[in-house]
Amino acid sequence: MKNLSRAEFIKMSVLAGTAFSILPSKLVFGNNNSKLRLGFIGTGLRGQELLRLCLQRNDTLIPAVCDIDERMLAMTHKLFENAARPQPEVYSGDPYAYRELLSRSDLDAIIIATPWNWHYPMSMDALDAGKHVGCEVIMAKTVQEHWDIVRKTTETGLQYMMLENVCYRRDIMAVLNMIRQGLFGELIHMQAGYQHDLREVKFNNGEQPYGGGVLFGSEAFSEARWRTQHSVERNGDLYPTHGIGPISKMLNIYSGNRFTSLTSMASKARGLHEYIVKEAGPDHPNAKVEFKLGDVVTTTLSTANGETVLLQHDTNLPRPYSLGFRVQGTRGLWMDINKSLYIEGETAPHRWEEAQAWLERYDHPLWKRFENEAAGAGHGGMDFFVVNAFIEAIKANEPVPIDVYDAAAWSVITPLSEQSVAAGGAVQQFPDFTEGKWRTKPDLFARDDRY
Amino acid sequence: MKNLSRAEFIKMSVLAGTAFSILPSKLVFGNNNSKLRLGFIGTGLRGQELLRLCLQRNDTLIPAVCDIDERMLAMTHKLFENAARPQPEVYSGDPYAYRELLSRSDLDAIIIATPWNWHYPMSMDALDAGKHVGCEVIMAKTVQEHWDIVRKTTETGLQYMMLENVCYRRDIMAVLNMIRQGLFGELIHMQAGYQHDLREVKFNNGEQPYGGGVLFGSEAFSEARWRTQHSVERNGDLYPTHGIGPISKMLNIYSGNRFTSLTSMASKARGLHEYIVKEAGPDHPNAKVEFKLGDVVTTTLSTANGETVLLQHDTNLPRPYSLGFRVQGTRGLWMDINKSLYIEGETAPHRWEEAQAWLERYDHPLWKRFENEAAGAGHGGMDFFVVNAFIEAIKANEPVPIDVYDAAAWSVITPLSEQSVAAGGAVQQFPDFTEGKWRTKPDLFARDDRY
Repeated sequence: MKNLSRAEFIKMSVLAGTAFSILPSKLVFGNNNSKLRLGFIGTGLRGQELLRLCLQRNDTLIPAVCDIDERMLAMTHKLFENAARPQPEVYSGDPYAYRELLSRSDLDAIIIATPWNWHYPMSMDALDAGKHVGCEVIMAKTVQEHWDIVRKTTETGLQYMMLENVCYRRDIMAVLNMIRQGLFGELIHMQAGYQHDLREVKFNNGEQPYGGGVLFGSEAFSEARWRTQHSVERNGDLYPTHGIGPISKMLNIYSGNRFTSLTSMASKARGLHEYIVKEAGPDHPNAKVEFKLGDVVTTTLSTANGETVLLQHDTNLPRPYSLGFRVQGTRGLWMDINKSLYIEGETAPHRWEEAQAWLERYDHPLWKRFENEAAGAGHGGMDFFVVNAFIEAIKANEPVPIDVYDAAAWSVITPLSEQSVAAGGAVQQFPDFTEGKWRTKPDLFARDDRY
Repeated sequence: MKNLSRAEFIKMSVLAGTAFSILPSKLVFGNNNSKLRLGFIGTGLRGQELLRLCLQRNDTLIPAVCDIDERMLAMTHKLFENAARPQPEVYSGDPYAYRELLSRSDLDAIIIATPWNWHYPMSMDALDAGKHVGCEVIMAKTVQEHWDIVRKTTETGLQYMMLENVCYRRDIMAVLNMIRQGLFGELIHMQAGYQHDLREVKFNNGEQPYGGGVLFGSEAFSEARWRTQHSVERNGDLYPTHGIGPISKMLNIYSGNRFTSLTSMASKARGLHEYIVKEAGPDHPNAKVEFKLGDVVTTTLSTANGETVLLQHDTNLPRPYSLGFRVQGTRGLWMDINKSLYIEGETAPHRWEEAQAWLERYDHPLWKRFENEAAGAGHGGMDFFVVNAFIEAIKANEPVPIDVYDAAAWSVITPLSEQSVAAGGAVQQFPDFTEGKWRTKPDLFARDDRY
């Protein structure tokens, strides 16, 4: 398939009578010498990385930030200082201080990087305040909340982008490029997941962000303050988007395809308890905590076009990091765990071939163009691209490439998975957040080298 | 755990009050100078490999074989000739000629290596005729048929062994050894499957066994004569045992554990049709055949002890062979796709380590002892072990290490999977073929270096 420019693609869709509401009437971009005015809610470690990338750019103004943690705010001030930028106004002192930030009239868009449970109210409030939203992964907690954000976004004509950085991983974008050029034939089956030993993220000593103790909740620092509690209370795929985001873009989800159902099963929960006992002994108070989250959660999804997707969540056990991608079509497959691929007629019969040369040959135009800018950005450069895409799309009054429908479809996997696990693996039907528009909605993700 | 001798193990189980009916009263071993008298039903290519291994041994007599294919029978005679053995009496000419073979009084046991649909009637008839059964994988087609064979075996006091060779793969036995010594901790999640591009098995030119044409059914030769039709008529995991067999032995299925439920989803079916079109053009009559079997079938199982098992079936697409094993516990994991493992505290943190040195260090006693005998046997030596185990157990009046309960649990996955796929992934409850005895039944698989 020819890579269309974004403008061509939109034009084609309109001419074909398949126009989708891509230019919301209320899109009011408060342009100030082409600078986007951003407010940050949440400047913990993740927020700081996004902030750092925004501060590096000459097309942003960041007049306001919000956080309730003094230590994180001190680090935030340092970032502004390092970037030789004017210090922002700080909103703090109360969990709802963010609402004061939202009431400012000099902000075009908000970047939200707070604990998961806050994404929903903060996104809703930001949209109500007339601000575009760029939100870290995990949209909301319940199916209904996902609908709320989709509808609020549509009603306001504003934009909501999920900042899912793995969509921009270099090998994944090369594979997307290969898919679009037909190298894998018709796609049949996909795999991905989040397989990451988070024990030192879920527990620390209250001083350092990672490990050194078995504290979580209010005694802990950084993510362990809030993320671990989800492992106490919930059982399902709690973190699906790093896997399903890239897979969705490959499968044209909501651009001619959609997820139709899923089923999830969870293994027993042993890892977190064993870690506490190993690190602090059986008498530590946290050794009495019962963790509900199964150590490995396995989810299978079906799609309207007949592909299957396997998604895994595995965060409590000792293991090397792996997102476990597999892309399989009628002509061959790629797997990242063995860094290999197979393409019928192109690679030697019945044998794996190292993928690297192929990934380089099909390097995505975006990576070719921004390789230098991405160098040094978080997570192997991916963070540069996701921030860049959000800022450039909003500046250009164009639809964000990971929109509210995408975000809802990816993030709603968590509550659906929880329901399935609780019901012994019972199949859950997938909501269609586009209400039928998925058949003709264009896919604007990484169609050219702009963003 | 100390490796007990088989005799010690049985004794211990009896003393512990957990005796299981391990020495059926009707076990009548017609010993002739310690030689086991075997009849072969099915001497196609698979049967011939099993036959060749039996002919190499000095503890077998093979007075009778049965097949209906003259070409295969000619090859069979050659095997006897090559082994300098007396030619067997041949039963042929009619699909039910095997019943005449079964009526002979000079056979202790029957080896069945026929098309899947024949395994059930032949096994039932063999048991009725008072013969022990060693049957190639796939026990039967329906859930009820699996029950029938379990009950017939129990009632007759005879033995039924599934000849699942992958249980004896060298790396898998080393990993089993590691599991039994606690290296992976408590097991949590397992993966395996049958990922094998069978297009040249499912189609040939009627002359050669593999490829060269797109014929199947009566016009084809060897497996394509019968195996392909299953892909036309059925949708589910049609070949689960190579994956689930080894996994079951690792999880102590039916020795303190059992499968409780499964769910299966199938992708669309494209691979076989595309192969026909690619090889023979869209006008070939077989290009009109609709194949029901989804190209990739994904099954998740739950167990009584809380582990999850992912099982994949993938036989219609171009790909390198891989059974996709993964063994994961509270201390680490092994995966065969990247030939790597990770063991907390033993391997470098957060990194994969090549598995080879570990597999050598934990080489199973059986492989150490029989390495030379296994050399040259089919499927990398595995076939030697599965044949050896069947013959030695029957000769010794001891329970076969892959018994009728194991066989039923592994093979029944196919009809359960078909039911689940047909119902959009709906959860299927697993029958307990041991009717409660799974809690205390000893595991006799590869406990020592005898067989």
